[in-house]
Amino acid sequence: MPTLSKKGQAMPASPIRKLVPYAEAAKKSGVEVIHLNIGQPDIKTPSQALEAVRNFRTEVLEYSRSEGSESYRAKLADYYGKQGIAVTREQILVTTGGSEALSFVMSCVADLGDEIIIPEPFYANYNGFATATGVTVVPVASGISDNFALPPISDFESYIGPRTRAILLCNPGNPTGYLYSPEEIRSLAELVRRHDLFLIADEVYREFAYDGKKHYSILQEPGLEDNAVVVDSVSKRYSMCGARIGCIITRNEQLMQAALKFAQARLSPPTFAQVASEAALDTPPSYFEAVNAEYTRRRDVLLEELGKIPGILVARPQGAFYCMVELPIRDADHFAQWLLEEFRLEGATVMLAPAAGFYATPGLGENQVRIAYVLEENQLRKAVRILAAALEKYQADGH
Amino acid sequence: MPTLSKKGQAMPASPIRKLVPYAEAAKKSGVEVIHLNIGQPDIKTPSQALEAVRNFRTEVLEYSRSEGSESYRAKLADYYGKQGIAVTREQILVTTGGSEALSFVMSCVADLGDEIIIPEPFYANYNGFATATGVTVVPVASGISDNFALPPISDFESYIGPRTRAILLCNPGNPTGYLYSPEEIRSLAELVRRHDLFLIADEVYREFAYDGKKHYSILQEPGLEDNAVVVDSVSKRYSMCGARIGCIITRNEQLMQAALKFAQARLSPPTFAQVASEAALDTPPSYFEAVNAEYTRRRDVLLEELGKIPGILVARPQGAFYCMVELPIRDADHFAQWLLEEFRLEGATVMLAPAAGFYATPGLGENQVRIAYVLEENQLRKAVRILAAALEKYQADGH
Ligand SMILES: Cc1ncc(COP(=O)(O)O)c(C=O)c1O
Ligand SMILES: Cc1ncc(COP(=O)(O)O)c(C=O)c1O
Repeated sequence: MPTLSKKGQAMPASPIRKLVPYAEAAKKSGVEVIHLNIGQPDIKTPSQALEAVRNFRTEVLEYSRSEGSESYRAKLADYYGKQGIAVTREQILVTTGGSEALSFVMSCVADLGDEIIIPEPFYANYNGFATATGVTVVPVASGISDNFALPPISDFESYIGPRTRAILLCNPGNPTGYLYSPEEIRSLAELVRRHDLFLIADEVYREFAYDGKKHYSILQEPGLEDNAVVVDSVSKRYSMCGARIGCIITRNEQLMQAALKFAQARLSPPTFAQVASEAALDTPPSYFEAVNAEYTRRRDVLLEELGKIPGILVARPQGAFYCMVELPIRDADHFAQWLLEEFRLEGATVMLAPAAGFYATPGLGENQVRIAYVLEENQLRKAVRILAAALEKYQADGH
Repeated sequence: MPTLSKKGQAMPASPIRKLVPYAEAAKKSGVEVIHLNIGQPDIKTPSQALEAVRNFRTEVLEYSRSEGSESYRAKLADYYGKQGIAVTREQILVTTGGSEALSFVMSCVADLGDEIIIPEPFYANYNGFATATGVTVVPVASGISDNFALPPISDFESYIGPRTRAILLCNPGNPTGYLYSPEEIRSLAELVRRHDLFLIADEVYREFAYDGKKHYSILQEPGLEDNAVVVDSVSKRYSMCGARIGCIITRNEQLMQAALKFAQARLSPPTFAQVASEAALDTPPSYFEAVNAEYTRRRDVLLEELGKIPGILVARPQGAFYCMVELPIRDADHFAQWLLEEFRLEGATVMLAPAAGFYATPGLGENQVRIAYVLEENQLRKAVRILAAALEKYQADGH
């Protein structure tokens, strides 16, 4: 039998993968499983986007340009302009999801063994892209007690070495829900300039900012032309994860040229999805206002309900739709499995995302879980009620 | 300015990229440019596929499963069964184009510096995927004089070393049009088993086989369960390149598990495109019969017309829709540019793909071009007439 590559063997599995069979077994036995574990929004995709695909007429479904269709990129540039981010079409490369954008960017900035510094906890698939591209992730710890704010610049600095190539941020954060302030961005900007590093920001949750806060993009920070690279996606913004459209935005021409070569090798991003994404740009502001009002309400409900559970610590999210919670238990993996296998309240249980998979440092986050508030209010209340009862039982059972 | 990765700098550009500005300039000045250089079929996409997308109703465009939708994979397994390839749904992983399938497979079988042996000339983007994944391509020369048949097994054997991980075939070949015989496949099967290597076959042109020949898949060869991996795609089969759907097929469970982790990191293949691809499986056999009859006719026209040009050598294609031609010139790159910049016949010229980009060995293929016969008959005749006149003029001009 031929042997697999080391990389193939080292690829991490998704943090919730091992829970899936337990969830399926529970459902099969008639139990209602409420999913607090997923990042798939339940919000409706804007009708403009879906209709554009229905109305799209073509006889031959051709490759688009590798960098994305001209009309879509032009409209995207307009859209960013309105968000206070002045970019041209040439500074945008359309990708197959934010996922592909992340792979391309990592590949463009780092070779095997090069390092990218990332505040942890972070989006678990960064590990997958790093393994696939041979990049070493160097985590800098952020803490639940200050809602996962930016770690001190001196912490970053202590990790910068000869192989450091970039700092990667997720803003607002998955799994943290933290929204970086302009001051935090500015301090990082100064740091990457001083050390000649790339600053990569995953801004796929950019439009989800609450409490009147406004998202501040690294592309709005002056003097970062050479350093700043943004990864974006339509997946969450328009609740169209299945489209698979994202983009890379940078004013660094060399970087864009290199990214384009990766894009040319894979020929083009999907055509139907570009049609949908272009039309999605016509989504009226009222859609986002309604969505943000909805997520704010859900977040408030979640925080209110979680607040009633004794002994837990909650990071207050100000963006995205995730909430990190520290539980009065030792092992969230075990607790999550126990919930699916053994605990039921009125015929229902919940599925949580254990947080250890969002940390690169072994041992961190073992008593934390991530809750995605992509459920409507009543389900959310019910889920937290189940969680509260489960915790009580779990502790009473002596786990 | 932060520096790019070595890999990012080393990524190859597409072989025809530098010709594009000349083609655009010619078009702008009113010249008709006949494209013999592209692999984008002009055949109509089956209406079933396009209609399925128009009729697809969803309120939330969700991620599909990372391995592709269950229904699509089940129907694909059926389809392969009918082609004489017995596989289960679990042995199929849906990817974003054959391109992504190639990246995943290379990543699963080889680490930085590991080697994959490929008969040259080969599909130029193999170089891109190899650079991106850190794999070293080891070319084995095949020759135009025997239509690019499989090189002797002893040639392969002489290149097998401690870092060899796989042999990669394209069958039928782009750019060669060569269709490997069952005997050739068998001899490779014996070789990879003996050396414990993977045998990767890019079979994206599988349904395009002419002269009554039948394509023989490596998955039809017994005893290759552990070694064989097929890369497939809907792009050419259904003339739906813009969909971006392909797949990996293997009976090697470990390999499938590893590929699945790469697939999970990027979340899912595009949803609309899977809907189209699933419906495309209902395309009646008459569609393929008509398409193959059309390509056979075009190939015959092309060979007939090329046969009239003195001093050229043509590889007779029996599959796909490409034809390699050796011209009585020194530098096909220069000739292709000259065609676009200087040569016009009745206000028209042709764009060729210089073949050097399909070879890994420097110096090979410099007097060869690839012609894609994805044009209708009259255009094809006209294009070859232009080519003939151009060659005469080019030689008379003393190039
Ligand atoms: C932080 C973050 N970045 C990137 C992605 C990738 O999303 P996509 O590839 O669907 O654009 C996700 C998806 O969950 C995410 O949470
Ligand atoms: C030999 C070969 N393999 C793979 C591909 C990739 O095609 P796609 O990614 O559209 O499936 C192509 C496209 O031209 C090809 O010619």
